[in-house]
Amino acid sequence: MAGKPRPPRFPRVALIGIGLIGSSLARVLRRDGLADHIAVCARSHATLDKARELRLADSTTTDPRQVVEDADLVMLSTPVGAYEPIAQAMAPSLKRGCIVSDVGSVKMSVIRDVTPHLPKSVHLVPGHPVAGTEHSGPEAGFAELFEGRFCILTPEPETSETAVKRIRALWEHAGMMVEQMDAEHHDKVLAITSHLPHLIAYTIVGTATDLEDHLRREVVRFSAGGFRDFTRIAASDPVMWRDVFLNNKDAVLEMLGRFTEDLTALQRAIRWDEAEKLEDLFTRTREIRRGVIDANQA
Amino acid sequence: MAGKPRPPRFPRVALIGIGLIGSSLARVLRRDGLADHIAVCARSHATLDKARELRLADSTTTDPRQVVEDADLVMLSTPVGAYEPIAQAMAPSLKRGCIVSDVGSVKMSVIRDVTPHLPKSVHLVPGHPVAGTEHSGPEAGFAELFEGRFCILTPEPETSETAVKRIRALWEHAGMMVEQMDAEHHDKVLAITSHLPHLIAYTIVGTATDLEDHLRREVVRFSAGGFRDFTRIAASDPVMWRDVFLNNKDAVLEMLGRFTEDLTALQRAIRWDEAEKLEDLFTRTREIRRGVIDANQA
Repeated sequence: MAGKPRPPRFPRVALIGIGLIGSSLARVLRRDGLADHIAVCARSHATLDKARELRLADSTTTDPRQVVEDADLVMLSTPVGAYEPIAQAMAPSLKRGCIVSDVGSVKMSVIRDVTPHLPKSVHLVPGHPVAGTEHSGPEAGFAELFEGRFCILTPEPETSETAVKRIRALWEHAGMMVEQMDAEHHDKVLAITSHLPHLIAYTIVGTATDLEDHLRREVVRFSAGGFRDFTRIAASDPVMWRDVFLNNKDAVLEMLGRFTEDLTALQRAIRWDEAEKLEDLFTRTREIRRGVIDANQA
Repeated sequence: MAGKPRPPRFPRVALIGIGLIGSSLARVLRRDGLADHIAVCARSHATLDKARELRLADSTTTDPRQVVEDADLVMLSTPVGAYEPIAQAMAPSLKRGCIVSDVGSVKMSVIRDVTPHLPKSVHLVPGHPVAGTEHSGPEAGFAELFEGRFCILTPEPETSETAVKRIRALWEHAGMMVEQMDAEHHDKVLAITSHLPHLIAYTIVGTATDLEDHLRREVVRFSAGGFRDFTRIAASDPVMWRDVFLNNKDAVLEMLGRFTEDLTALQRAIRWDEAEKLEDLFTRTREIRRGVIDANQA
């Protein structure tokens, strides 16, 4: 990699949504003085008060139209289902040349929901920092969250190179490895690496929740055998994930279909005592773990 | 909890199988001088050499009949599918009053496969330390593996109380919280807390392995979004897990049936944009995580 690039500076940043990701980015901006003013927008005053208390906001408002006034960078960090009304509300007061970006886990829907509302003088650079924890809210964030993780940008071919470079520099400065791909490809890759795992974790924890009382009580106690890893994933933000599944429906249903086929085959192998088939699969899956470790993503 | 009980002592211990769990137990025995002699049996000389090199074995053999000679405690730590031939082989040379125990993840099959071969003068105390990592082999073990985790014993009602107490004391000494229940109940609880999570993790990692090349390469890079937790689980020992599924077939298929129903319902909710249904489930599953954290099993 080349030497560390000059830190990107944005005189005025508007953060719309200040949960785990938004507040972690705010902490990076603060720590390194990348913004003179951070204006924060959230739906609830309780969240805004918390953001001020944490010194993450110089000004706050519940109004998306107001928060983007004079902003050089607008970063959407709400659940993706809220993007369209926000885009509609903020559009009239976006500054000429302003960059609008986001951190959502789905990218085709961003282009679909946000682009039609933006004036031509504004640059949309959809982004996805692939980082997170199972905790939510402004107090859950930390500046180091992004370090060593990938960030995926999915700008349209006609997008200003300069705008893309500035968003790339921002995430690189936060410690991320930035990749570019088209939104459709992003949504397919994330469907299998992130959306399907979450869907399955939510399901199995739900299945356990519905067990007869005498079994359910024990599930928690003996969770160390594998289940607890699923409970961690299934503790992620409910509204964020609801919106992910509804906005990446095609790719999620496609991957879910493949998964279900494979699960049915495995079920059959167990029922019919096909020992070799089981051992073969369990041996093959070990390889992928090695890949994850080699890629430093373990 | 009452004060620390006197450490249990076994003049001669035979360990049959010296992988992650067996070698971790050997390290506890060594560290605290709980055995005068540790005799180790494994199928391969390479494994036995490794066990000697790690100073976990005072004597070694590939012969189960030989290893149990004069042993006060015989601990089976092989994949559960190997128990029956081992029981058959070792039975004739078991000492009167000897305790036979195990560490397998399935308990009904132990009673089914081992009991018929044992002389009446020997005590069978099936056990399951619910602890582990995704690593295998004698070098993967460590004495602290058991600390703060649950161990489940499933002795039959007619089993000698003294024998059960000694096995309980052994695992308590290793730092475990020991519970007793019947084998059938154990196998149901573990089917949902451990076996089904492993089955699902193996499946989804397998599904990813079968993707088109251009997608598969990216899966590893962007695994931080949830997938990597599954790769860790799906890196567990293939033979051990093959045997678990084949020997807890009924409970695994029953839980798998419930899971599949729930997954199908969720799939339908996504297809039909049932936002509220999704959010409700994702909110309910958060509760279980809190339970896991409260139980100190996170």
